[in-house]
Amino acid sequence: MKGFSLNQATTKYWSLDELVSGCVSVGVSAVGLWREEVTAFGTEKAASLVRDQGLTVSSLCRGGFFHDENWYDENRRAIEQAANLGTDTLVLVSGGLPGSSRDLDSARRHVGDAIGALVPDALAAGVRLAIEPLHPMFCSDRCVVSTLDQALHLASPYPASAVGVVIDTYHLWWDDTVWDGIARAGAEGRIAAFQLADWITPLPSGVLLGRGLPGTGAIDMKRFASAVRETGFDGFVEVEVFHEEVWSRPGASVLAEAIAGYEAAVA
Amino acid sequence: MKGFSLNQATTKYWSLDELVSGCVSVGVSAVGLWREEVTAFGTEKAASLVRDQGLTVSSLCRGGFFHDENWYDENRRAIEQAANLGTDTLVLVSGGLPGSSRDLDSARRHVGDAIGALVPDALAAGVRLAIEPLHPMFCSDRCVVSTLDQALHLASPYPASAVGVVIDTYHLWWDDTVWDGIARAGAEGRIAAFQLADWITPLPSGVLLGRGLPGTGAIDMKRFASAVRETGFDGFVEVEVFHEEVWSRPGASVLAEAIAGYEAAVA
Repeated sequence: MKGFSLNQATTKYWSLDELVSGCVSVGVSAVGLWREEVTAFGTEKAASLVRDQGLTVSSLCRGGFFHDENWYDENRRAIEQAANLGTDTLVLVSGGLPGSSRDLDSARRHVGDAIGALVPDALAAGVRLAIEPLHPMFCSDRCVVSTLDQALHLASPYPASAVGVVIDTYHLWWDDTVWDGIARAGAEGRIAAFQLADWITPLPSGVLLGRGLPGTGAIDMKRFASAVRETGFDGFVEVEVFHEEVWSRPGASVLAEAIAGYEAAVA
Repeated sequence: MKGFSLNQATTKYWSLDELVSGCVSVGVSAVGLWREEVTAFGTEKAASLVRDQGLTVSSLCRGGFFHDENWYDENRRAIEQAANLGTDTLVLVSGGLPGSSRDLDSARRHVGDAIGALVPDALAAGVRLAIEPLHPMFCSDRCVVSTLDQALHLASPYPASAVGVVIDTYHLWWDDTVWDGIARAGAEGRIAAFQLADWITPLPSGVLLGRGLPGTGAIDMKRFASAVRETGFDGFVEVEVFHEEVWSRPGASVLAEAIAGYEAAVA
């Protein structure tokens, strides 16, 4: 594995300038970025900033939401933005059930079809589409892809250079089949990103902002890091945490704790 | 399937007297009960009340929490209470990770061992231990059994007359493997209870009280009812919903809506 990367969402209130200087000042060599923040800052300007500071963009979040009316154009723009930022990984959050539908099978098939439609654009841009299974508690409203097995199944018709999967501890830790899935994802060359966040309770209302920094919760981070390392994964390990209390703290302190959590996991 | 049963938790603020008279007055022939309420009312008194009114007790919730210090004695008392109430089904909520442990495999093994230790008591009492897989969002703090596959695996060493599983739509709806699991559970004679509750968002803080009455959310209830019916399941269909807004309404109105949701599902 290449080392630590700070996902921008972890230090949400840092500007992109602060993120870059904060990372460079402590020797962090990679960041994961989010489309909204990059777009607000200016994509070309962001690309220059990270390039000039010698940073790698380990991933861009996020494409997906394939049930939105404009999904195709929006995802093509996301692919282009990823390429412009110099990252080879676009994380996909696939979206929940459309409208009042209760047809999960159909929603999941549509995700597969949509990804297939984007494969030529992804290959042309040199950007890999990284299907992220989200925790089943997000199934109805955010992502119908709930397990690593489902993500691998959706990826399977397409070349591994075009479609991969995201291993995020927060979403997958409860699944006793995840260890086999990680080994299989590695053997297929499909691990596009590896992200750390911990499971803490009680979950907050809406459950989106309930993640803990690695080491603060219930997840066996070392087992995940070992399993991913054993596949030969050679990417960065992103720490990606959403939590109001974490966001309220000084970015440098959060970054230090994120690095410590990463180091304990990969030790 | 035998018909509708009202789980007591759905009309939480009804006393046991109100629950029984409310059910009898609209022709409902079964109720699912909870230990705490039954104990407060008096187990013998509760048993007489339901028997005298011709009601079946479709299940008793709950045994389990196998990582508590007194789990063995507590579960033996639960089995005895179920037998005294005349129900053949004790629902097990197995408990989360013990203390600060992150060892899910070990916690799950302990659940299996604990259930095995209780099998002789269950057989002697004529009460089936019904392992309930809970939604993965409860994995750390309430139940390490997160999927129907896991529940069936834990049940597999023991006779189906002693150990079964609970199919609860709320906990299992997101799982694409659940249909195979239901068929397998049916073929093994292990479906001990079938419960309906719907998935609605946003989830409330703590996520426990976020369930909707059947028909109000994202779950394909008809598909679940068909899948369970096709196994030859001959038990009751319980509606079991926890939600403050539902609890705040008059019990008779909630019961009517629960029955309507059940009828739409099994139609």
